[in-house]
Amino acid sequence: MRACVCRCARVRQKAAFSLMTRARARQTATLPVSGHAVTRSQRRLERVTAAAVVVTLGRWGHLCCQGSNTVHPRNCNNLHTGPECLEMTDNIASDESGLSFTPLVVIELASNTEEDAVKWLTKRISDKKEDGGADLKITALPRAKEDLSKENRKLYLVGASKERLLLGAEEVGLVKECSDGPMRTFTCSNRNSFKGFEDNKDDFLSMAECQYIIKHELDSLRAKSETMIPGYPQISLYPGKSILRRLQSKGILIQIFPLHDKEELKKLSGSWFGQIKFSFQPLDAIRHYFGETISIYFGFLEYFTFALLPMAFIGVPYYLFAWEDYDKYVLFATINLVWSTVILEFWKRHCATLAYKWGTLVRKKEFEEPRPGFHGVLGKNPVTGRDEPVYSSTKRHLRIYLISVPFVIFSLYISLCVMMVYFVMEQWVLEYHSFHQSYWSSLLLFVPSIIYAIVIEIMNRIYRLVAEVLTGWENHRLESSYQNHLILKVLVFNFLNCFASLFYIAFVLQNMHLLRQSLATLLITSQIINQIVEAFLPYWLQKRYKRRMHSKMSQIIKYKELPWVEDVELETSMSTYFGTFDDYLELFLQFGYVSLFSCVFPLAALFAVLNNLTELYTDAFKMCRVFKRPFSEPAANIGVWQLAFETMSVISVITNCALIGMSPQVKSLFQSETQLILLVAAVQHSLLALKFILCFIIPDVPKEIQTKLARLEFESLEALKQQQLKRAKEALNLK
Amino acid sequence: MRACVCRCARVRQKAAFSLMTRARARQTATLPVSGHAVTRSQRRLERVTAAAVVVTLGRWGHLCCQGSNTVHPRNCNNLHTGPECLEMTDNIASDESGLSFTPLVVIELASNTEEDAVKWLTKRISDKKEDGGADLKITALPRAKEDLSKENRKLYLVGASKERLLLGAEEVGLVKECSDGPMRTFTCSNRNSFKGFEDNKDDFLSMAECQYIIKHELDSLRAKSETMIPGYPQISLYPGKSILRRLQSKGILIQIFPLHDKEELKKLSGSWFGQIKFSFQPLDAIRHYFGETISIYFGFLEYFTFALLPMAFIGVPYYLFAWEDYDKYVLFATINLVWSTVILEFWKRHCATLAYKWGTLVRKKEFEEPRPGFHGVLGKNPVTGRDEPVYSSTKRHLRIYLISVPFVIFSLYISLCVMMVYFVMEQWVLEYHSFHQSYWSSLLLFVPSIIYAIVIEIMNRIYRLVAEVLTGWENHRLESSYQNHLILKVLVFNFLNCFASLFYIAFVLQNMHLLRQSLATLLITSQIINQIVEAFLPYWLQKRYKRRMHSKMSQIIKYKELPWVEDVELETSMSTYFGTFDDYLELFLQFGYVSLFSCVFPLAALFAVLNNLTELYTDAFKMCRVFKRPFSEPAANIGVWQLAFETMSVISVITNCALIGMSPQVKSLFQSETQLILLVAAVQHSLLALKFILCFIIPDVPKEIQTKLARLEFESLEALKQQQLKRAKEALNLK
Repeated sequence: MRACVCRCARVRQKAAFSLMTRARARQTATLPVSGHAVTRSQRRLERVTAAAVVVTLGRWGHLCCQGSNTVHPRNCNNLHTGPECLEMTDNIASDESGLSFTPLVVIELASNTEEDAVKWLTKRISDKKEDGGADLKITALPRAKEDLSKENRKLYLVGASKERLLLGAEEVGLVKECSDGPMRTFTCSNRNSFKGFEDNKDDFLSMAECQYIIKHELDSLRAKSETMIPGYPQISLYPGKSILRRLQSKGILIQIFPLHDKEELKKLSGSWFGQIKFSFQPLDAIRHYFGETISIYFGFLEYFTFALLPMAFIGVPYYLFAWEDYDKYVLFATINLVWSTVILEFWKRHCATLAYKWGTLVRKKEFEEPRPGFHGVLGKNPVTGRDEPVYSSTKRHLRIYLISVPFVIFSLYISLCVMMVYFVMEQWVLEYHSFHQSYWSSLLLFVPSIIYAIVIEIMNRIYRLVAEVLTGWENHRLESSYQNHLILKVLVFNFLNCFASLFYIAFVLQNMHLLRQSLATLLITSQIINQIVEAFLPYWLQKRYKRRMHSKMSQIIKYKELPWVEDVELETSMSTYFGTFDDYLELFLQFGYVSLFSCVFPLAALFAVLNNLTELYTDAFKMCRVFKRPFSEPAANIGVWQLAFETMSVISVITNCALIGMSPQVKSLFQSETQLILLVAAVQHSLLALKFILCFIIPDVPKEIQTKLARLEFESLEALKQQQLKRAKEALNLK
Repeated sequence: MRACVCRCARVRQKAAFSLMTRARARQTATLPVSGHAVTRSQRRLERVTAAAVVVTLGRWGHLCCQGSNTVHPRNCNNLHTGPECLEMTDNIASDESGLSFTPLVVIELASNTEEDAVKWLTKRISDKKEDGGADLKITALPRAKEDLSKENRKLYLVGASKERLLLGAEEVGLVKECSDGPMRTFTCSNRNSFKGFEDNKDDFLSMAECQYIIKHELDSLRAKSETMIPGYPQISLYPGKSILRRLQSKGILIQIFPLHDKEELKKLSGSWFGQIKFSFQPLDAIRHYFGETISIYFGFLEYFTFALLPMAFIGVPYYLFAWEDYDKYVLFATINLVWSTVILEFWKRHCATLAYKWGTLVRKKEFEEPRPGFHGVLGKNPVTGRDEPVYSSTKRHLRIYLISVPFVIFSLYISLCVMMVYFVMEQWVLEYHSFHQSYWSSLLLFVPSIIYAIVIEIMNRIYRLVAEVLTGWENHRLESSYQNHLILKVLVFNFLNCFASLFYIAFVLQNMHLLRQSLATLLITSQIINQIVEAFLPYWLQKRYKRRMHSKMSQIIKYKELPWVEDVELETSMSTYFGTFDDYLELFLQFGYVSLFSCVFPLAALFAVLNNLTELYTDAFKMCRVFKRPFSEPAANIGVWQLAFETMSVISVITNCALIGMSPQVKSLFQSETQLILLVAAVQHSLLALKFILCFIIPDVPKEIQTKLARLEFESLEALKQQQLKRAKEALNLK
């Protein structure tokens, strides 16, 4: 107990001292060093009194503490600390203008929300667990006095005590590294055996993890006996319904997002895209700040770019020397196909290594709480025995196979019809032009493409909307399962829209020249458009952002007392990052361009590599500067995208073999066409067999990680045995 | 404690009483009822004094107990029982002619084995665990006096105490059903929570399980500091080398096998093949007696037969009405292909259900002890931390890919060459015959086939021998991994030998008539030969066996005192069952005949069904009557055979599509051959895609079992948490 108090005191010293140092550095006025200006021991969770924060001018008091790495608390033992500090800090909670906790997440309610609803929501959020609440801390965003009169946005800050967050970490099943090496599921009772818990308590849970925990707690806040939302008799509730989900679907909850951490963000972006240099992605830092889903995306992007390099190098001489011999093409296609299989298999291994290091490989998905959108009669989870909505999987399967699958197939059919209409229009316009040869007719040549592009875009949007509704209606229990089903639906449609015309040109029109042209055009234009949307647009946005910042800074007088409130309001109006779907889709289509018709356009890989090199920068930039911080999501792999990439590589075996068989050089070698086709089919089947054998013999998880996982499982079984032994002994003693 | 003594007493009563009942029934002389003739409480583990056994005339004393179901121990409270019995039974161990334990396993040593070696081996087997022994009981088979003078086989009986077996059950990771429902890994400390432990201790571990445990213990008996086998300075040992394995490879240990249980065997064979009736296989009883590997084989055989029924029914009208329209064939082939995919997928589910019920699905393979043939430097297992030989998996992979794989490919090539020579010979003989048309030349027609058959048989044997040596040399850690690699090697070769000629006829000669003829001949002759080898031969063997039994019975005077010794000697000379390989191979080849060319010979499925119906009986018969009892082996699935069957069904998609494309009816529908082939390729790819989608969407384990497994895992994690909580509390209390 004594050691604990000492440690607390020392951390408080550190915090107070750094506040002072900062203050001195900025040559600001008196800082209350002892007593009521100290912070709590945990960095993220310190009780920062706004009054003190104002003086330090940092975004958050604790951030300043972190910034001052040069000063060690041990060097300032002259500061007054002791048990009495503890009492004083506890009193700070009642400080008028400040916050008694570190805000982590912002909730925005509609400005016309009924007071009853607000009161009820804040009560439910701050209620104790025993009373069915989330046991979090919530407060309205403090406002400048002149703002109070105006009708303004209802913003609330949510945070939690350190103890609460640790409990939450156990609840969400966070996996952390132990002092003795292996990754284990975090438990509060065993906290001291985890690495980094003892020696530096502040850094144990990263801010992203804390925000994830709070998100999870808010999501699993479910209605008890309420039949409606107070103040809104028309919005009904039933036991087990996620409250935030209902509020969001009814437009009362506008958004909920985690706050950025300015200091850390600066450090991260500095090491990430601050200077133009060739280095690996700082994946650990990305994961620390944005969570596993996003860091795995960047890991994949980096891996994929490296993996494409050999193909890019091999493709160059084919372009330069215009090698058109069939044997060279066969060689190229074969290398390409084997290579694409190998890189996809090795990605799984690489990803497993990353996921193990980050603790998500060990995490048990089945034991997760259901996603907030999941609804059903309140029952008992058959695995965990917890109270939660229950929904029959038979019903879900019926919905999937009887409604969703036919819908997808129908949409694909419509899309194909539209494509056929486009080709007919194109043909017709060409004929018209060759007949009339006027200026107007030459303009008319562009019309079909434009109409087709517009129709495709409209169809894409409608389809995506319907797909989202359908997938939500399928009522998946886990977020990952929902995501996978949604991605699969959207993916298939996008694939068809992108590649159907190329397939038509390749195998129906059999026009290799046109295919090469279309392929190059599609690849390069899509890359240029992407670069503009992802690099120049963000650049412009950042400019605007800075300008806005500047104009706001001039108004700083307004928020003189609470400058960080300014930042919260600024973040609230940033655009939202809608997940990695579009980023993966871009890579997926790129992979398609590179591999499907690789022997027609060997330069594709080079273009892809060049594109990805800039992509790495622009994606990093948009994550840090353009978007609101997204909630960190645990992930152990790229999910259904692995399947998508593998399917693409199977399809590419078939297309490449067919393309080689169709080339005139190869055709001229065979007397009968039948022989040729049979040979092509044979080669195809052998290559596919080779692919599957490769997939089969390359283990998905490296041996080393397998051993570690097995060791973990063994330990848990041994623990079970030990426990049983103990119980048996106790039972014996009782007798 | 008191309750325990009472229960022991009651069981002893039961045993003693049943001995008496038996004795009375057989009208034999006085039986010592109380005191020194009682048995220990556990059925399998009772201390049966041979003196008492002789009188009862049953195979084992405890078997008689089991046989007398009509008499309940509660009906005979007049028997003298009490604490004093306990002491007396313990003294029985020193009884001159009897055994102090139930013999479970027989070890046969070479008759010229050095006495030193025998002494050392028995010491190592009976030594305590702490001293590096196996802590089992071993004794030489008692002999009739007139036998002792003759040079005779060295037979040893091995058994163990009940406590030892329970410890062993924990060590091998036996999974048992708990009183509250789920399957859990058995632990001695938790024994009372398992179903059937309290209310009927005798039946808790089946005899097969006990034998498996003893086998495991003997297998894991490894050399400590010995550098050679005593008495054999030329046979070296090194720390960690399996002792029994070395003895076996040097010819000192001739065989080791578990004993049959006559009473139970009678019951089992009665319900299994005693009467001709249509009922499901008694899988639970088979598993109880023979273990999981064999019961899963019978489960698969039964499932497969049922699964073939629809195909057999559909095939009949095709034969009767000689439907030769291509559309009907296409329909038949498509149904066949989809069906074969579906049944293979559903088998996985069915098998998982069985394996869960039998506790092998939950069992952890990785934590098993290495197989006895596994060698390496003595080190620490990275997962379990136990001392055991360690061998680098890189070395193993190098051996597999650099030696084994090239060897297999080379063998396949040789086999293909032999086949080509056969076809050339066949051609030459045909020409010779048509030229000469003599009696001799017509006899000559058979020569190529005979030579080919002989060469194939020789090649098969040599190949199998080399495959075994190679797989042993690959040094797999787990028995299952060894088996899978061996099976895969032998399988590929057998597949080629069986089907290569059919492929040649179908796709090179393109002679559908000859194909149908060959297929029917191969299928029917192989079935007839199998029936003879597996039914008539066993029948004759049984006749011989009975005759032998009879002639032995007349000599019974020799073993008047120990008639069961007779049985042991009889079993010793029965032939050994070499595992399920040949049985699965037969089914696999049958599946090939049925599916590969299904549209050429639709009756194949019917023949297969008819064959399997008798196969069920003959296989059951040979397991119970022809062979020595095999050691029970845990298994959760059919292992690499699943892969083999699935691969076969993929190949059959390709062959069937090609066959349909080649039929003249189809050919006549298309003007150009190219169009036809392209269409066939397209259909092929769609069917393959459909197959993979089906595999993907049908989960391998039924939802219900998945939930149970997840629940188990959840509990084990919770236990870990609880344990940590307890530890933390204790640590806190200490402070």
